[in-house]
Amino acid sequence: MDRERFEKQIQFILEADKEKNILRQTHLSGHGRRENDAEHAWHMALMIYLLREYANEKIDLARAMMMALIHDIVEIDAGDTYAYDEQGLATQKEREERAAERIFGLLPDDQREELRTLFEEFESYATPEARFARSMDNFQPLLLNNSNEGSDWKEHGIRRSQVEKRHENTALGSREIAGYSMALIDENVKKGNLIK
Amino acid sequence: MDRERFEKQIQFILEADKEKNILRQTHLSGHGRRENDAEHAWHMALMIYLLREYANEKIDLARAMMMALIHDIVEIDAGDTYAYDEQGLATQKEREERAAERIFGLLPDDQREELRTLFEEFESYATPEARFARSMDNFQPLLLNNSNEGSDWKEHGIRRSQVEKRHENTALGSREIAGYSMALIDENVKKGNLIK
Repeated sequence: MDRERFEKQIQFILEADKEKNILRQTHLSGHGRRENDAEHAWHMALMIYLLREYANEKIDLARAMMMALIHDIVEIDAGDTYAYDEQGLATQKEREERAAERIFGLLPDDQREELRTLFEEFESYATPEARFARSMDNFQPLLLNNSNEGSDWKEHGIRRSQVEKRHENTALGSREIAGYSMALIDENVKKGNLIK
Repeated sequence: MDRERFEKQIQFILEADKEKNILRQTHLSGHGRRENDAEHAWHMALMIYLLREYANEKIDLARAMMMALIHDIVEIDAGDTYAYDEQGLATQKEREERAAERIFGLLPDDQREELRTLFEEFESYATPEARFARSMDNFQPLLLNNSNEGSDWKEHGIRRSQVEKRHENTALGSREIAGYSMALIDENVKKGNLIK
C-alpha cells in the first residue's frame, strides 16, 4: 500500500461525509423532513440499477452509479441550488467550479481526473451514463413530491411550465420514464398541486 | 413499458425511502448527529468505487455497489442492530429474514430474486463482491468514529477485543485495509478511546 496515496483517498472520503448535512428542498415521503444530498444520491444510484432497462442507450452501470453518488459533492462548498431558483442558478456554475477544484483536488491525481470527468460528463449530458443519471436526478424528487401531494411545489408556488421544462431533459436518458413523468405532472396539475 | 412491472419497481423505490429514517449508532464526522442507513450505504458504495484497488480479488463494481446500497434495507422492518449488542444479535437473523421476504417481495419476480441473491451473498461473504462490500461496512464507521476520537466506542464502553473481532472479517475483502484498520484500533487503545 502506498500510504500517501491511501491517506489522500481517506481525506476525500471524510470530506464527502459533509454531504450528509446539505439539505435539499425535497421532503422525504410520508411528509418527512427535508432530504439531504447523500440520501438523494443513494436513492438515485439504487434507481439507476433497478430501472436500467428503461435507459435509451446501453450504459456502464458502475460509471452511472458513481456519477450519481458524487454529482452533488460540490454543494459541500457551493450549497444546494433549488431547481427553480433563478437568481441562484445564475451564479451556480462558478461556485460549483471552484468547489470541484478544491474537493476533487484532495484525491490522488489519477482519481481526481477520473471523478472530475464523471462530474463534467454529468453536468453536460455528455454520455449515455450521464443522460440516464440525469433522468434519475429529475425523476427521484418527482416521485417523492408526488407521494407527498406535491407539497414541495405548493410551498414554492411552482408552475407546470417550470416543471415541464426541467423534465424535458429526462427524455434524453429515458423516453419511457419521461412519459411516465409527464403523466404524473398532468395528474398534479389536475389535483391543483401545480399552477397551470 | 409494462406498466404493472414499472409500478412494482416504483413501489419498492418508495419503500426504500424509509431507510433514511433508520438511525445507526455511528455519528457523523465533526461530532455530528447519528448517521442513517441510507447515508451509510451511500458512503460505502462511494468507498467501494474509490478503494477498489485494495480488494483481495477482482470484483464486479456495479454488483458490489448495489450490494452496499441495499444491504441494510431489511432494517426498515427489523431496525438497526448495533454491532456490539449481543441480545439484539441473537434475534437479528430471524427478524431480517421476514423483512427481506416482504420488502424484496414488492419487486417484479426477476428483480426480487436478483436483489435477494445480492443480499444473501453479502450476509454470507459468498463472493468477492460480498467480501469487499463487507470490508467497507466495517471500515466506514471505523473512519467516522476515529475522526470523532472514538466517541461511539466511549459511549458504549467498547473493548478492544470486540472491535478486533469485528474487523477480523475486513481481511477477507481487503488485507491492506484490514492492516490499516488494526493500526487505527491500536492508536485508539493508546489514546484511551477503547478499553484494553
